[in-house]
Amino acid sequence: MQRISFADKNCSVAQALEVVGEWWTLMIVRDALLGVTRFDQFRQRLGISRNVLTTRLDALVAHGILERRAYDEGRDRHDYVLTPKGRGLVTVLCALREWGDEWILGTGNEPIQVLHRDCGGDVRTHLACDRCGHDVTLAELRCAPGPGLTDPDLLPRR
Amino acid sequence: MQRISFADKNCSVAQALEVVGEWWTLMIVRDALLGVTRFDQFRQRLGISRNVLTTRLDALVAHGILERRAYDEGRDRHDYVLTPKGRGLVTVLCALREWGDEWILGTGNEPIQVLHRDCGGDVRTHLACDRCGHDVTLAELRCAPGPGLTDPDLLPRR
Repeated sequence: MQRISFADKNCSVAQALEVVGEWWTLMIVRDALLGVTRFDQFRQRLGISRNVLTTRLDALVAHGILERRAYDEGRDRHDYVLTPKGRGLVTVLCALREWGDEWILGTGNEPIQVLHRDCGGDVRTHLACDRCGHDVTLAELRCAPGPGLTDPDLLPRR
Repeated sequence: MQRISFADKNCSVAQALEVVGEWWTLMIVRDALLGVTRFDQFRQRLGISRNVLTTRLDALVAHGILERRAYDEGRDRHDYVLTPKGRGLVTVLCALREWGDEWILGTGNEPIQVLHRDCGGDVRTHLACDRCGHDVTLAELRCAPGPGLTDPDLLPRR
């Protein structure tokens, strides 16, 4: 199936998917968020060859999502560590985890709990209003043109 | 590049990506969340052929993310409408949009604003603790084994 580039689309979801829309990208980010930094550990967890993993990690470094930090310069060995741009994907990953828990694995089958370090409570993603502070459901959302809208057809006429 | 199946992975992110990890899936869900329901409108917005779009919509219906609702039974025409499982992806899409706005397009270049219908404030994704109610940053998170953990290696030893 042909891979269409989204790079010229006037939409930040399309732009995000242009960078992290390949199925494997977010699995590497998942592992990095769980604390994996070493090439061999990524390889073992993802079950892929050295060549394929090298290509993938190089792409994430090129996109500024991971950075290399030398831990043994003599042998050219390094850790792969998330940048602020990479750490910014935590909400995407948490939202995917919750959706998978709710709609695929089902309640009681969650493999991992994400907890608040301070109080031990479950941490979940919320949609909340910056102005009034309330949690907002899909039915309470509306989309409006933003300052960067160049393609008015992005917002369909209702 | 070989497509490895995540279906047997004991991880809800992997399970979610097994369903929505193809680059085009979330673009169709984006359009459905924006109110698109008709085949020809999806086709025009995504710029793909009838055959390809048919395959993609059929997959989303098979996964229970979209459902068909007849609007002209005589001509076998139907709308594609998000199910509750599909609407559950709104947080994933909002998180991707915010990440694309922040890290790719940049502040001031947002094509779309997502607003609270009641008060007009900007709506954003948050990670918040169910117990104490506080917003939580990545540094304040910790992962723990959940009731469905069958692969203890999912949580790396620190």
